Amino acid sequence: MAKEKQQVEQITDMEVDFAQWYTDVVKKAELIEYAGVKGFYVVRPYAYAIWENIQRVMDGMFKDLGHENVSMPLLIPESLLQKEKDHVEGFAPEVAWVTHGGSEELTERLCIRPTSETLFCDHYSRIVRSWRDLPKLYNQWCNVLRWEKATRPFLRHREFLWQEGHTVHATEAEARAETMQMLEVYADTCENWLAMPVIRGRKTEKEKFAGAVETYSIECMMHDTRALQAGTSHYFGDGFARAFDITFTDKDNTIQYCHQTSWGASTRLIGGIIMTHGDNNGLILPPKVAPIQVAIVPIATHKPGVMERAAELLARLKAAGIRVKLDESDQSPGWKFAEYEMKGVPLRLEMGPRDLEQNQCVLVRRDNGEKVVISQDDLDSQVAAALEGVQQGLYEKAKKHLDAHTFTAQTLEEAKALIDTDGGFVKAMWCGNRACEEQIKDTTGITSRNIPFDQERIGETCFACGKPAEMMVIWGMSY
Amino acid sequence: MAKEKQQVEQITDMEVDFAQWYTDVVKKAELIEYAGVKGFYVVRPYAYAIWENIQRVMDGMFKDLGHENVSMPLLIPESLLQKEKDHVEGFAPEVAWVTHGGSEELTERLCIRPTSETLFCDHYSRIVRSWRDLPKLYNQWCNVLRWEKATRPFLRHREFLWQEGHTVHATEAEARAETMQMLEVYADTCENWLAMPVIRGRKTEKEKFAGAVETYSIECMMHDTRALQAGTSHYFGDGFARAFDITFTDKDNTIQYCHQTSWGASTRLIGGIIMTHGDNNGLILPPKVAPIQVAIVPIATHKPGVMERAAELLARLKAAGIRVKLDESDQSPGWKFAEYEMKGVPLRLEMGPRDLEQNQCVLVRRDNGEKVVISQDDLDSQVAAALEGVQQGLYEKAKKHLDAHTFTAQTLEEAKALIDTDGGFVKAMWCGNRACEEQIKDTTGITSRNIPFDQERIGETCFACGKPAEMMVIWGMSY
Repeated sequence: MAKEKQQVEQITDMEVDFAQWYTDVVKKAELIEYAGVKGFYVVRPYAYAIWENIQRVMDGMFKDLGHENVSMPLLIPESLLQKEKDHVEGFAPEVAWVTHGGSEELTERLCIRPTSETLFCDHYSRIVRSWRDLPKLYNQWCNVLRWEKATRPFLRHREFLWQEGHTVHATEAEARAETMQMLEVYADTCENWLAMPVIRGRKTEKEKFAGAVETYSIECMMHDTRALQAGTSHYFGDGFARAFDITFTDKDNTIQYCHQTSWGASTRLIGGIIMTHGDNNGLILPPKVAPIQVAIVPIATHKPGVMERAAELLARLKAAGIRVKLDESDQSPGWKFAEYEMKGVPLRLEMGPRDLEQNQCVLVRRDNGEKVVISQDDLDSQVAAALEGVQQGLYEKAKKHLDAHTFTAQTLEEAKALIDTDGGFVKAMWCGNRACEEQIKDTTGITSRNIPFDQERIGETCFACGKPAEMMVIWGMSY
Repeated sequence: MAKEKQQVEQITDMEVDFAQWYTDVVKKAELIEYAGVKGFYVVRPYAYAIWENIQRVMDGMFKDLGHENVSMPLLIPESLLQKEKDHVEGFAPEVAWVTHGGSEELTERLCIRPTSETLFCDHYSRIVRSWRDLPKLYNQWCNVLRWEKATRPFLRHREFLWQEGHTVHATEAEARAETMQMLEVYADTCENWLAMPVIRGRKTEKEKFAGAVETYSIECMMHDTRALQAGTSHYFGDGFARAFDITFTDKDNTIQYCHQTSWGASTRLIGGIIMTHGDNNGLILPPKVAPIQVAIVPIATHKPGVMERAAELLARLKAAGIRVKLDESDQSPGWKFAEYEMKGVPLRLEMGPRDLEQNQCVLVRRDNGEKVVISQDDLDSQVAAALEGVQQGLYEKAKKHLDAHTFTAQTLEEAKALIDTDGGFVKAMWCGNRACEEQIKDTTGITSRNIPFDQERIGETCFACGKPAEMMVIWGMSY
């Protein structure tokens, strides 16, 4: 147990310093390693396996809804980036520029894509001609690069992995429906796979994507009660289509501009998982995306029959479709317990000589520490039920946390006081004025998360400026 | 049939101008679209779906052999690229340089990875400490960038998609076994999934990878009898480990340098599929990686019952795990026939009112045009057998082509004459001297493909310089 303690003690207490706890977990659970350039990280195998599981879920949903994957170029000519006015203003300050190819200086500098609207639009303008070509429902899994000043593992990389969907439609109605549908795909992923409850809503004008008519988001609450924007979906209208000349000939032979959407989610979701579910023993992974769902730790491995039976249990769980690992190494059980706790493996299965004799094993839940002795005859069903229990338990705990830290406020002072003392989200009525929102941010640091679809009329006047209220907004501190 | 003819006529005859035929197919089968910057391409959904199928096959094999996926940074600091002398000499002339991030000029310029040896080595030097940490068997699916002068779709992109495996081992023997094992994975992928017969062998000193002790390759013969290097696997010895200080403490407590490998295959494989199997009607895809394995084309769709039955056949094939598409569009059957031929769909299933009446349908093989009438009762088994038939047929045809165009030569003049008239590969004995090899290339344009594992002693003297022969080499013109 000495080694176990030692490892646990190396993590900062999350209630003392949440940021340091996060950094510790990211490092000790072997999720991230720093690379030579600031803001660039190695996504290590364990984290990448989580990402692959998230990709599998989302990619499946995308394809079921008719989307196709493509690969667009990494580099954008400066002139192409500049085609849509709002878009270039939003992104130009934070891109990296390629100026030389081999030994020659380029005649036009190229930026590494910070997002690929301009590339997709250029492509669509070449391939869309007729109503028969529509809709185009494309998605890309790729790396993008934004030259951020402050960087943090998963939450803000200069280079990050994501997917970006870009679709082009004949009508506004169809594009708007797509925008909402994809937001719901993200909400579904978060809630039902990552066990992260979300608030669905529309972003304010100030917070919307550069070039969008409207941006929708899902917002999650982390353990420290700050907000994480976990996915966004944008309706573009025909603004990009006009800038890039994306037109089609309609059935009645008239030429029309297309309507577009884009939507994205990134490895930031892994940061969300860590900060939603983790505890002072490390990571806790939702079983549905955990690379290892069950770690089998044999006890007294030298005793006759233990390793053989452990291998049988492994084979049975594998055959049942469980992602399971048998740890046969010569490390002590205590070391292994701490290791799989740190890595957030949802279930630990212990089995020693006495268990072998009695045809039983011990199942330990990572989320609540609950230990049950089960008969080996019931292995499959008990493991499946316990995994379901962890998945449910994580969601319910996170939902309770969200509800317990969501308040209402009638004045800015009240909102500020609530966030300063209890932290969390504050629902408050707002006038809809951009200048008012900017002042709220400047004076308090609080930003609008979104205008939730579930509107409540909790007052008549703006909590900040006192003018007539137009909508209820969720406010908070964000990552 | 007018439309069908029209579409077919738009492709250049492959026997007249193979390069133009290739470009035509790539465009008309909607595999590639040109982007704004030379050498950068849009990999369109149909090509990307082929790539996803290839990825699934290879990724599954990698993981079954214990490899894990990771993600390394896109950018390499110039000082890091320079750490291994041979490596930097090989790659520095063809990299793209990032000099500005946002509005600031960087203090050190960063290159976009042309390959990631330096990044993996830097990472391994940070995480490998003890024999317990070995081996590390990592792979990365990513984009890389090489500033090539001459570019062609799939065969030579400035940016291309690939996987690069990088492994680190305690012993030379283990690393050498890994190198050979991964070459065999590539050979297996090509032969058993892409229906492309390969020649396994070792590269000459001149042709090996920059920084490797030995490079192994698989070489395929295209329809025009030129060679395509389809995958390479490198044994690095401890050269990179010494340059990057990757050491570990052995079980007996001594500090040792690690032994390393790397291996890669890319979207170039799609170019290989096109040039191995295609014909004057377009692409022909091996069923195992075809995005659509069966295209159902209903005839006289307005006749009662036709569309309903076509939908039933679709559902049955889907349930049997076949990738199938039912074309319900209002295009003519002739247009659809040409379309799915162009796209290389292995099987076409036709069904009209008369077939409906007689409970039958018509199955047409893309590779040889063979038409059979089958009972709908036998649908699943007949389709499965026909897909297997196409897969086998493509491999056999390609193998015959390879064998028929592989010659032996005793002199350089003979080799040159063979390649000039019949094209193909020439087996010839060689002295092993690098200067001799360089002269062969300079005077004839022929290059060594590899030193095949299946050695034959077909002479005693070097076919070029007449000195004593050390080995048999395969020579040819390459892509």
